[in-house]
Amino acid sequence: MRTVGIDLGGTKVMAVLVENGEVLAKVKRPTPTVGGPDAVVAAMVAVARKVDPEGSAAGVGIGAPGPVVPGSGVLPAAPNLPGWDHDVDVVGRVSAALEGRPVKLDNDVNVGTLAEWKLGAGRGVDDLLGVFAGTGVGAGLVLDGRLRQGPRGLAGEIGHTFVAFDQFHDAPVGRGELEDYTGRRSLQRWVDVSPPAESAFMRSLMHKGRLKSKVWAEGVEAEDPLTMRLVSRAASALSAAIASAITLIDVERVVLGGGFAERLGEPFRQRVDAEVAARAFAGQTAPVVAARLGDTGGALGAALLLEHT
Amino acid sequence: MRTVGIDLGGTKVMAVLVENGEVLAKVKRPTPTVGGPDAVVAAMVAVARKVDPEGSAAGVGIGAPGPVVPGSGVLPAAPNLPGWDHDVDVVGRVSAALEGRPVKLDNDVNVGTLAEWKLGAGRGVDDLLGVFAGTGVGAGLVLDGRLRQGPRGLAGEIGHTFVAFDQFHDAPVGRGELEDYTGRRSLQRWVDVSPPAESAFMRSLMHKGRLKSKVWAEGVEAEDPLTMRLVSRAASALSAAIASAITLIDVERVVLGGGFAERLGEPFRQRVDAEVAARAFAGQTAPVVAARLGDTGGALGAALLLEHT
Repeated sequence: MRTVGIDLGGTKVMAVLVENGEVLAKVKRPTPTVGGPDAVVAAMVAVARKVDPEGSAAGVGIGAPGPVVPGSGVLPAAPNLPGWDHDVDVVGRVSAALEGRPVKLDNDVNVGTLAEWKLGAGRGVDDLLGVFAGTGVGAGLVLDGRLRQGPRGLAGEIGHTFVAFDQFHDAPVGRGELEDYTGRRSLQRWVDVSPPAESAFMRSLMHKGRLKSKVWAEGVEAEDPLTMRLVSRAASALSAAIASAITLIDVERVVLGGGFAERLGEPFRQRVDAEVAARAFAGQTAPVVAARLGDTGGALGAALLLEHT
Repeated sequence: MRTVGIDLGGTKVMAVLVENGEVLAKVKRPTPTVGGPDAVVAAMVAVARKVDPEGSAAGVGIGAPGPVVPGSGVLPAAPNLPGWDHDVDVVGRVSAALEGRPVKLDNDVNVGTLAEWKLGAGRGVDDLLGVFAGTGVGAGLVLDGRLRQGPRGLAGEIGHTFVAFDQFHDAPVGRGELEDYTGRRSLQRWVDVSPPAESAFMRSLMHKGRLKSKVWAEGVEAEDPLTMRLVSRAASALSAAIASAITLIDVERVVLGGGFAERLGEPFRQRVDAEVAARAFAGQTAPVVAARLGDTGGALGAALLLEHT
């Protein structure tokens, strides 16, 4: 089956044409910053046409940043998409613009997990947790050989795991959730609230007041004390949330990806894997392996939605 | 279908004869403290015969304290059962003793959740979390209308959620897991390590150095400061773990039971329900309702195993 997959992100829209797990063509363009949902829908239609000019695909799958109620086709207000401030019937609109072609929509992290499960580091198991640490932290679940979406499309929101329950009422940064300690956004905040002397190194790497994921690897490399402390805590909080998830839902393998984790690379993955094993209940861990599909995983997984949901 | 359900606990073995969700007969006896698995298996066979003397049941379900690999019929070493220090083929042995009758085995908390889902406070939803706080804290999951067991039978071990990730290496009591803050065993430990002056009230309620679940309700009633602090923290840690679970797996309802929670009663449940709602991601909570089946829930759920797994 030949299908188109679209990864709708806050900064770019990527489309791939896929057959038997092979990427036949790929296009991307910036996400429109003006024009709201109309412009974003038009951009998705445009990349779908461009990647498959002959219209040979049996359908189009879309991964988008937000919870999607299964079967609804609707993407609710999405803070990461410019001007996307209300429910939009994405499936209906994209399908109508593409001559009624079948269209499916799911959360971006769910489709990333689907891709790793079918084509990447998660192959061969029926129970998988896919964790993606980028700006924030999200996860996707495969349970008993099926992608778990949940009745409200919430399943996998591991970033909101409470890893420090007693910080709920008085945390300096956040409420004690995993995303308060792990991911690009939270580490940036901790630098912002730290004394200038302590954070001089990281502040020197800011570009327009922002720290990209790659600077954290540089800070570790340079043995900057603040960076090492924050990255160490990020790994520890992530390990706690992953170990808790393994124990609650019983998965056989964990795939770790996302820009933040991938920039920190193999040392970070190894540290998380070892700490997850140390925390595992009754010694029953699940190995934490590196995601394999990188930047294209989301679009690939979206292309798989037609066959696997 | 008429079936026998057996709840195998550390102190008693209870059997019920069930038809159409109605308990037709009930028997219990103490769990043998000597004789190990042979004596315990014999006790299960004896209660099964006594509750159904005519042998009218189509089969026997058993709920037991420990992870059970789905379909294995084996209960591994179980610290809560006297002398149960190795794998025992419970299904094979009980079935052989009962003339080859069909026998099914699952974890006690899973069967308690199954009972609440089919006959109690969890009726009518397809996605349910059953949480039982007693000596420790365990949970059962119903996802997409099926009891989730997990490939290793681990699913639902919510007591090992890391709610205080930074306590892993230096906690005075435990590693920062939910069970270090919630449940009869952990609260007992916190009293044991607290200064005598502070814990004078609770120590006065000890019987042979042990605190039963009911004394916690007494301590709250008497407004004992240590009790109130420990119970408040127990509720908060439990709320954090439940809110994290709702967000990770997306369930519609939570049933709260178990001796510790039930003794603390409605005020405790209300507090947990309110804090779970306050912690919920994007306001999407799931109501925390009281378990309805009490002490008989485990045996009832075991009786349902024949039909529902």
